[in-house]
Amino acid sequence: MTTLLESLRDLLGPGNVLTGGDAAPHLVDWRQAAVGRALAVVRPADTDEVAEVVRRCLAHGVPIVPQGGNTGQVGGATPDDSGRAVVVLLSRLARIREIDAENDTITVEAGCVLQDVQRAARDARRLFPLTLGAEGSCTIGGNLATNAGGSQVLRYGNARALALGLEVVTAEGDVWHGLRALRKDNTGYDLRDLYIGSEGTLGIITAATLKLFALPAAQRTALVAVASLERAVTLLARCRAGFEAALTAFELISSESAKLVERAFPQQRLPFASGLAPWYVLLEISDSEGEDHARACFEQVLGAALDAGEIEDAAIAQSGAQSESFWLLRDSITLAIAQTGKCLKHDIAMPTSRVAGFVRTMGERLGQVCTGIRFVIFGHLGDGNLHYNLMKPDGASDEQFVASGAGIMRIVHDSVHAHAGTISAEQGVGQFRIGELLHYKDPVELSLMRRVKAALDPSGIMNPGKVLPG
Amino acid sequence: MTTLLESLRDLLGPGNVLTGGDAAPHLVDWRQAAVGRALAVVRPADTDEVAEVVRRCLAHGVPIVPQGGNTGQVGGATPDDSGRAVVVLLSRLARIREIDAENDTITVEAGCVLQDVQRAARDARRLFPLTLGAEGSCTIGGNLATNAGGSQVLRYGNARALALGLEVVTAEGDVWHGLRALRKDNTGYDLRDLYIGSEGTLGIITAATLKLFALPAAQRTALVAVASLERAVTLLARCRAGFEAALTAFELISSESAKLVERAFPQQRLPFASGLAPWYVLLEISDSEGEDHARACFEQVLGAALDAGEIEDAAIAQSGAQSESFWLLRDSITLAIAQTGKCLKHDIAMPTSRVAGFVRTMGERLGQVCTGIRFVIFGHLGDGNLHYNLMKPDGASDEQFVASGAGIMRIVHDSVHAHAGTISAEQGVGQFRIGELLHYKDPVELSLMRRVKAALDPSGIMNPGKVLPG
Repeated sequence: MTTLLESLRDLLGPGNVLTGGDAAPHLVDWRQAAVGRALAVVRPADTDEVAEVVRRCLAHGVPIVPQGGNTGQVGGATPDDSGRAVVVLLSRLARIREIDAENDTITVEAGCVLQDVQRAARDARRLFPLTLGAEGSCTIGGNLATNAGGSQVLRYGNARALALGLEVVTAEGDVWHGLRALRKDNTGYDLRDLYIGSEGTLGIITAATLKLFALPAAQRTALVAVASLERAVTLLARCRAGFEAALTAFELISSESAKLVERAFPQQRLPFASGLAPWYVLLEISDSEGEDHARACFEQVLGAALDAGEIEDAAIAQSGAQSESFWLLRDSITLAIAQTGKCLKHDIAMPTSRVAGFVRTMGERLGQVCTGIRFVIFGHLGDGNLHYNLMKPDGASDEQFVASGAGIMRIVHDSVHAHAGTISAEQGVGQFRIGELLHYKDPVELSLMRRVKAALDPSGIMNPGKVLPG
Repeated sequence: MTTLLESLRDLLGPGNVLTGGDAAPHLVDWRQAAVGRALAVVRPADTDEVAEVVRRCLAHGVPIVPQGGNTGQVGGATPDDSGRAVVVLLSRLARIREIDAENDTITVEAGCVLQDVQRAARDARRLFPLTLGAEGSCTIGGNLATNAGGSQVLRYGNARALALGLEVVTAEGDVWHGLRALRKDNTGYDLRDLYIGSEGTLGIITAATLKLFALPAAQRTALVAVASLERAVTLLARCRAGFEAALTAFELISSESAKLVERAFPQQRLPFASGLAPWYVLLEISDSEGEDHARACFEQVLGAALDAGEIEDAAIAQSGAQSESFWLLRDSITLAIAQTGKCLKHDIAMPTSRVAGFVRTMGERLGQVCTGIRFVIFGHLGDGNLHYNLMKPDGASDEQFVASGAGIMRIVHDSVHAHAGTISAEQGVGQFRIGELLHYKDPVELSLMRRVKAALDPSGIMNPGKVLPG
């Protein structure tokens, strides 16, 4: 393999072929849950260099692991421990290639950090709506490779829905120039959406043309207390009808989640009397008219919900700062969990009509299996997507609890499956969820997936052991 | 082949295996531009029967041509003239399987007529927004197989954007049970979007789970006169910012198109002085608040455009009936063309920022090539999608004009390509546009498409000779 390494140093310059300590940060995921090894970590400068790297690796039969901001949850960007792979960083492909404000599109390279894309759009008085926790470090290439979701999906869709065109280096080192900026194009198979969400196992996305939207005149949030999950779903229907597309977030927060935050960060508090309700909803509307109209809309829709006895109370943010404080509370749950103790996490989605039944059934079942287990449930209820977190009972040991994780996951995922849901709503399959995929996926679908993989990556060099078994 | 026919009669009942005169209507497209022959036309009753038909055809090496409402524009549902194929009608798979109003989803079988799906949604006080001319006879299976567009794409997307899950009979007669009702699901490759738009060449869509939306409280239209195409695009930007997601249609009508309608249907008239402007725009907004708010929004946004000198005049529909009369004028253009004479049609799209330049360049170029040619341009400007129609010059013979069609098409499509556009925005490839596809498609993309076809339809029995050469 010395030949390949030398050839890559020739191609990219020695400073862009990392080994040893320089490579180390790229051989482990941010949670340190996946640790691998690699022949080298390389940093091509542009699409042609990416293509040439792929061709040279292919010639040597060397596997390739593409990596963006390395913020994934499922070990999808970490090589295995064979030390055979080359990790390809897209970080130097970080140009905003074009903004066409009139066409409401932006063309960016894969290594652009999501926040930089949001900012470039805003500078052109446009909105790029993909919004998620890791936006300061994740890259648009990774967002597309994993079909990232986040908190505005109910209005703008997942990453997939925001992409019009792609540039892709195929598994054979060809460049597919598919950077279309078209809202309608029916000339053949939808390769774009095949690469999106394929987690680097079919090719490497090197650039994308993305949709932009009008900047809202005002964004405003409200926090609403509801007596049950059924009521939260009723409120969702009311908000969809009342706000229509102006509804840009509908986030669920259980009282247990709020309590964790209040305990970990005492300056953060719900704007309600303690213990008012078991569930809270964070609503956001993005208004095309302005603050006054946004507030009037909130007052009308939430007022009607109050009159109908569907909600317990509502606090409409009175300022941008208060809007942000509501979001901060929501976004602090993950950190509060980390500070509190061991947690089993599940990234699930199901039809919103099934969510309340699922949560009730699971509460009873898991209460029997694991006495004292604590439910820290929150997430994107507008999309039926729950972060279904289970925390260690007081008194149980960390080891004991973690050891019970596989059994508990099976119970949770069996019920998700029975409720017509998915065991990975946002985060993908990577290496951690292949077992679950094989367990639940329709065999016909698995067979079709294997054929697609064999057709587009016949040598099996693209991110092997991710999405499908290696 | 008698064996296969007998076996299909056994399976489906003799009345559902059509030959001779009974089969004839299904062997020609509605424009009579494609005429084929077939071994038989069969009508399976359900998904299992579709799968069994595929397995039996596969065993005999007999090609399959799926057919929905037979309203396509590119001969995609018509068999070739070898007489070897079996045409599979989906018309008996016409059940609405489920409406989940709480989850805003509907599950329907492929043979459901689009209008019936719209109606079922409305009966549940929901909106299924796919809207197109053939909605009274086209089927949802055909809409998905061709990724149908229509006039509300700028708000709700193409058919692809409206589908959450599919049930598909694969090219080997397996059933993929992919009827998910999920807004987020990242468990593997996006097979759904691969089957959508594949025009029956990879498998047969037998059912789909579709997104529903809130019914708007009010829909209202306006007609606006503009001095140039550049001004129409400026108006689009103003409307996107001002109405945001409430903007559900932005249709371009050239004065030539309007004149054709006024001549063919004298009771239909623009609400402006004759000759006021070279271009008109039909705007529709769907308001979540009501008629008064919709009118106020129109007055504000169009008033500002008038004050800025960007538009010549605007007529806001004063009633539902007037809204419909504006739509009728728009929808009558195709009929008016048919009554007027020979026309060369092109279904193109490009970035909206390039449309005005394209139309100007083409006007000059074609005026030189074909003196007196008449431009009848209209379409979905909000999506950059033009129906770019060229009518015979007075005095030229029909034969002469039609004979010049291929040369003119090359000029038009070359320019579309140079303007980063597509030669098939809505209508697909079918059999008529394969030559154009091969001419303009990136060879890397073509090669990927061929691999996908070989992977999912290894025997090549699914609708051969469509999308890709047989």
